[in-house]
Amino acid sequence: MSNLINETIQNIQPLNKVAMDLAKERQDSLTKPTGCLGRLEELSILLAGIQANPRPQVKRKAVIVMVADHGVVAEGTSAYPQEVTAQMVLNFVHGGAAINVISRQIGARVVVVDIGVAADISDYAGILHKKIAPGTQNMCKGPAMTLDQALRSIETGIEIVNAEIQKGLDIVSTGDMGIGNTTASAAICAVITRKTPDGVTGRGTGLDDKGLAKKVATIDRALALNKPNPADALDVLAKVGGLEIGGLAGVILGAAAHRVPVMIDGFISGAGALIAAGLCPQAKDYMIAGHVSVEPGHKTLLDYLGLKPLLDLNMRLGEGTGAALGMELAETSCCILSEMATFAEAGVSNKGE
Amino acid sequence: MSNLINETIQNIQPLNKVAMDLAKERQDSLTKPTGCLGRLEELSILLAGIQANPRPQVKRKAVIVMVADHGVVAEGTSAYPQEVTAQMVLNFVHGGAAINVISRQIGARVVVVDIGVAADISDYAGILHKKIAPGTQNMCKGPAMTLDQALRSIETGIEIVNAEIQKGLDIVSTGDMGIGNTTASAAICAVITRKTPDGVTGRGTGLDDKGLAKKVATIDRALALNKPNPADALDVLAKVGGLEIGGLAGVILGAAAHRVPVMIDGFISGAGALIAAGLCPQAKDYMIAGHVSVEPGHKTLLDYLGLKPLLDLNMRLGEGTGAALGMELAETSCCILSEMATFAEAGVSNKGE
Repeated sequence: MSNLINETIQNIQPLNKVAMDLAKERQDSLTKPTGCLGRLEELSILLAGIQANPRPQVKRKAVIVMVADHGVVAEGTSAYPQEVTAQMVLNFVHGGAAINVISRQIGARVVVVDIGVAADISDYAGILHKKIAPGTQNMCKGPAMTLDQALRSIETGIEIVNAEIQKGLDIVSTGDMGIGNTTASAAICAVITRKTPDGVTGRGTGLDDKGLAKKVATIDRALALNKPNPADALDVLAKVGGLEIGGLAGVILGAAAHRVPVMIDGFISGAGALIAAGLCPQAKDYMIAGHVSVEPGHKTLLDYLGLKPLLDLNMRLGEGTGAALGMELAETSCCILSEMATFAEAGVSNKGE
Repeated sequence: MSNLINETIQNIQPLNKVAMDLAKERQDSLTKPTGCLGRLEELSILLAGIQANPRPQVKRKAVIVMVADHGVVAEGTSAYPQEVTAQMVLNFVHGGAAINVISRQIGARVVVVDIGVAADISDYAGILHKKIAPGTQNMCKGPAMTLDQALRSIETGIEIVNAEIQKGLDIVSTGDMGIGNTTASAAICAVITRKTPDGVTGRGTGLDDKGLAKKVATIDRALALNKPNPADALDVLAKVGGLEIGGLAGVILGAAAHRVPVMIDGFISGAGALIAAGLCPQAKDYMIAGHVSVEPGHKTLLDYLGLKPLLDLNMRLGEGTGAALGMELAETSCCILSEMATFAEAGVSNKGE
């Protein structure tokens, strides 16, 4: 493992229990029956533990959208052509994608990263150019990446989130774009959660039954050929993963090392979270699941990670859209904790008084 | 029925299918796989049908918080003393309650209405003074309200939402405060959904097992004594309801008559929705369930009304808190519909092209 990755992992510390206890104490003093804001209360307490601050704040928000292509699309596992990946980057740049709209509404900045788009988009302004390779190799013919590429993808994610933290960042959402990336994510999910691919593979952008069967068979072949080691997250990432998935794993590790909460988006982000947790189980404490996607493997991996999603809105877009909605709830939870009056301040009688 | 109520009901029209078809057509042209934003897409299409506008907007938002007391608290059915109702009104006025915090965050105005607080709070500034009675009567001794009071509560809700619509209103949330009002709501829910009280009665602000059993027995007695007619919503409201519940039913009817979507909050708002739907089944088309509460009767009544909640965050506060969070999602859904680029605009290849 590289120095950057090792140092980052060593900096990931447990949640701050003192801050959590103080946040819980304050929640219980606010003018509402104890616990009646349910998951919003829990979320504010978790954020206190992550930020080591009894009054956490979620004002400065970013969505990091990692974009890459996948050689496995040559097997015909996606409903959309590969050129859509690069076209969508331009859509992000112009502010026309769903994640742009949601981010404008919630006041989050969108950081788009070419970490492995198959087309030459080096002239696109307004994105970070960090291409490691023009897409992965076809995992049905051999490993998707070299070990060095996999390491570089993680390092890139760490570097990018570190730079965003330098600019000021209270919370970060993971986002992705890449035609074919539900195939890589299903492969990672199957290996690490020890399920068979047919149980964790979904229709992605809209496969029919025949397309879905082909996708499952493709993953079966890739796993049989590459034999990724479930106990070695880096091996799994390199053999059947993707450059954006490694990048997101790096974002998660880098954020956790700086006590910045990470809102996890859908299935691809979840695959990144599996890699991050494989490299550093402690990083799970810094993950919050923004939503549960329609992709069947997403619930499997959230259960595996011990994460309970905030939202369940039948979404399956990626880009960080579900995570961005979750960030809004995180902000609400912190505003409630900080801004509500206590029973004493408001002169309201508490239960049993 | 009064002229105001009758005229309001007559003005409630079906959803506008042309606007819905146009909104669906646009959703399918936006740069994302068809249907991949799930409930956000459905919500935008419903809002188009409600507002009769293929590009609905949810910018001007209000939460109407109806506040009243309940004579049934004399039976010991609440964990908090009755004076908390008036104390919480002052908390709303000072901006220290949960609904104030959430409304500030989402840019909604909060309209607090004394429609039946047991204390004299006529000197409180910043609220609407519409007291019909100082709380209801104890429904274990006779009807909670006279028929005239029940009618006045509904009329008051209509008048208030009409005035808000005059000021400019794209969407409205229902909210409530009133010690004892989960007891009245459970009674209404049991009668109208034809369940026994034990299946739809919950712990409210925090009863223990013994308190819960007493609450169920209290409702059993009130129903046996008053024999409300399940087919006559006004009879149910008068006999076992509450002034704030009637007020919320009026808000729903008035909003629906003006094609303004109504985000329904928790159990008390749901009881108001049952009354509104009983008076005018067409009004259901204008209701959106912001969330599902922990109160067990809430899911029962949402199922009865055919409403699927947007959020499930283990909340049980009322005040309109869950509905306000739902309004934020409604706004997001409209921004997506209006602001996302189409495949043609963005030059992105669509599926199969």
